[in-house]
Amino acid sequence: MSNAWVAEVVVMPKAGVNDPQGEAILGGLHDLGYRAVSRVRAGKQFRVEIDAENEAAARNAIAEMSDRVLANPVIEVYEIESLTPLTGAGAER
Amino acid sequence: MSNAWVAEVVVMPKAGVNDPQGEAILGGLHDLGYRAVSRVRAGKQFRVEIDAENEAAARNAIAEMSDRVLANPVIEVYEIESLTPLTGAGAER
Repeated sequence: MSNAWVAEVVVMPKAGVNDPQGEAILGGLHDLGYRAVSRVRAGKQFRVEIDAENEAAARNAIAEMSDRVLANPVIEVYEIESLTPLTGAGAER
Repeated sequence: MSNAWVAEVVVMPKAGVNDPQGEAILGGLHDLGYRAVSRVRAGKQFRVEIDAENEAAARNAIAEMSDRVLANPVIEVYEIESLTPLTGAGAER
């Protein structure tokens, strides 16, 4: 039997890697008067719904597609923040 | 006294709002053979470091700049996923 899972994957620039988007947002915040902000790092968040036999299979598939598609491993790191069964209430269809 | 805080802010397209980036990623995953993926929603994740007198002041400032800069409230929703004191170990400088 196959079940539906939903994963939250966060992709962030690696520490030490230049982040022009984050720097642009920091500059914009300063221009708007938010001088107390000292640093911004900008990344991506993905919500992926997948059918898999069990949680381990779902996690393996999500990790593989994160490495291949969602993140660029040269300059980014990803983290599977959560992996939970997809219930009707959370489906948002 | 002012303290440093770090906030993680997630910005996602609202339910029902078209998400062309998520749809493009879903199509790419299918082309690569990940047919078990049924849906992808793509959003943004921001890590914001800010000086504030206390946690409430930090949260208020982060919420205001999320509304004004980080998210477009017409089509996106934001969530302050976490707000924690910035320690030396977490500073990543």
